[in-house]
Amino acid sequence: MSGGKNPSLASPSSVGYFLDMPLTKNQIRDLRALSQKKFRDDSDLFLVEGSRLLREAVGSTFEIAEVYHTAAFGATAEGAKLLETLRRRASLREVTERELGSFSDTVNAQGIAAVLAQRHDSPSAMVKPGDGASSLVAVDALSDPGNLGSIIRTCDWFGMDGLLIGQNSVDLYNPKVVRSTMGGLFHLPVVQGVDLPVACTHAKELGYTIYATDPEGSAHFDRIPYASKSIIVFGNEAWGISDAVRASADTRVSIRRYGSAESLNVGVACGIVLSATRKLKE
Amino acid sequence: MSGGKNPSLASPSSVGYFLDMPLTKNQIRDLRALSQKKFRDDSDLFLVEGSRLLREAVGSTFEIAEVYHTAAFGATAEGAKLLETLRRRASLREVTERELGSFSDTVNAQGIAAVLAQRHDSPSAMVKPGDGASSLVAVDALSDPGNLGSIIRTCDWFGMDGLLIGQNSVDLYNPKVVRSTMGGLFHLPVVQGVDLPVACTHAKELGYTIYATDPEGSAHFDRIPYASKSIIVFGNEAWGISDAVRASADTRVSIRRYGSAESLNVGVACGIVLSATRKLKE
Repeated sequence: MSGGKNPSLASPSSVGYFLDMPLTKNQIRDLRALSQKKFRDDSDLFLVEGSRLLREAVGSTFEIAEVYHTAAFGATAEGAKLLETLRRRASLREVTERELGSFSDTVNAQGIAAVLAQRHDSPSAMVKPGDGASSLVAVDALSDPGNLGSIIRTCDWFGMDGLLIGQNSVDLYNPKVVRSTMGGLFHLPVVQGVDLPVACTHAKELGYTIYATDPEGSAHFDRIPYASKSIIVFGNEAWGISDAVRASADTRVSIRRYGSAESLNVGVACGIVLSATRKLKE
Repeated sequence: MSGGKNPSLASPSSVGYFLDMPLTKNQIRDLRALSQKKFRDDSDLFLVEGSRLLREAVGSTFEIAEVYHTAAFGATAEGAKLLETLRRRASLREVTERELGSFSDTVNAQGIAAVLAQRHDSPSAMVKPGDGASSLVAVDALSDPGNLGSIIRTCDWFGMDGLLIGQNSVDLYNPKVVRSTMGGLFHLPVVQGVDLPVACTHAKELGYTIYATDPEGSAHFDRIPYASKSIIVFGNEAWGISDAVRASADTRVSIRRYGSAESLNVGVACGIVLSATRKLKE
């Protein structure tokens, strides 16, 4: 916790069970505020809901500050097991269904939610010198949370080495992004707020090839020998890739259209291109 | 209009401008009710919002019953042009921003919305005898509106010949489905409420090969020579393809995992597999 503006949230260093009193209005207000970017930025925290995501979180290096769960959740075998694991890492607090629902982002709170510390890695931890293979993906001003979540999930499926999120993209810690990664957030190295033109120029100096996906691209996605050090860039849902990023690309990649749709969903396009990079490496 | 329970909505046969009086409470109630499946089923109508989708609708064979637009929308060059085209096909009605917002499903109503008649084609119009190529997609109990919309958009991009929507799937005319097809609904032949085991059995008799996508499938998606008459089936987000449909499949197709995600989004999986069917036909 960065000495932030959510004073009523417990410090992540206080591990164990904290006092089982009803949540105060201020605590509920602060937890609910985590659905807004401004408050996530101020507190450097974010909310993770549901046992599925929390099982992934507990296996990651993310710092778990506080866990809120219902008595019913702890009474299931699966729930008890997860809480046992979480207890070693975080403060646990039993709350009522109603309390959990009051700050949950989902329609049906799933009996458990946790506050985690955001991570702020640097692009240089991902864009590496040397000859080792490094398959990265970048998104340029992506705006839809479901699309970002889906891209993280897809990168995780295809075993990409990391994702660079450009400036002016939707926040990685948006609850809908976190949910739709289906746990990929806790497996895949992700850096956000990246100045993509600068990062791409730097990556090229380190031997990376930059592929910009672009409806006007002359290279068909399944006819390219993707380099072992590569960054594949996907653009904004409406405007595609910015001029500055396009200018830094070595190759402009497209997916041929056979029907009459104006465009493909960017998450779908990402899956199609990544599947081709993996096919050629077999 | 099927003599239905939305008596305050105008008949689609009354083409031209109808009376420019404020919408009555009952009219607004009936328009708003189109966001619910029960009322769409009762009236056999659905709502389409925004100029982009309506440009696609006007080029289709869908029957357009009524168009509601603001004065500001008609005052733009693009808006005036669209209204001119729509006037030949439907009743136009000018409404206030506030009236439009009162029944719009989107956060920001885009100045125009229309009520269209649903279509109820039969699977036999799509599953054809003879030797002609026919590339169909089917979805089995798909539950997420965004996924169905994305699959329709992807089928439209890859020029599929049609989509069969199995029983227990999300309604095709759900506003979020309609929106996320990005117009694909107006290009692609789609039939919903299909008994998939029956349709697949019938299709096989007519020479189709059935491909069921399945994480356990032994055939890798990009190693298969897809038949010229084919149905590729995608399953429910959580449970995959039902046993009855799987039993009717000739081939079980999978996408190899290289990383640690538990699964791919079904819309992304659809894009990956369809891109491979097209690649091999070049």
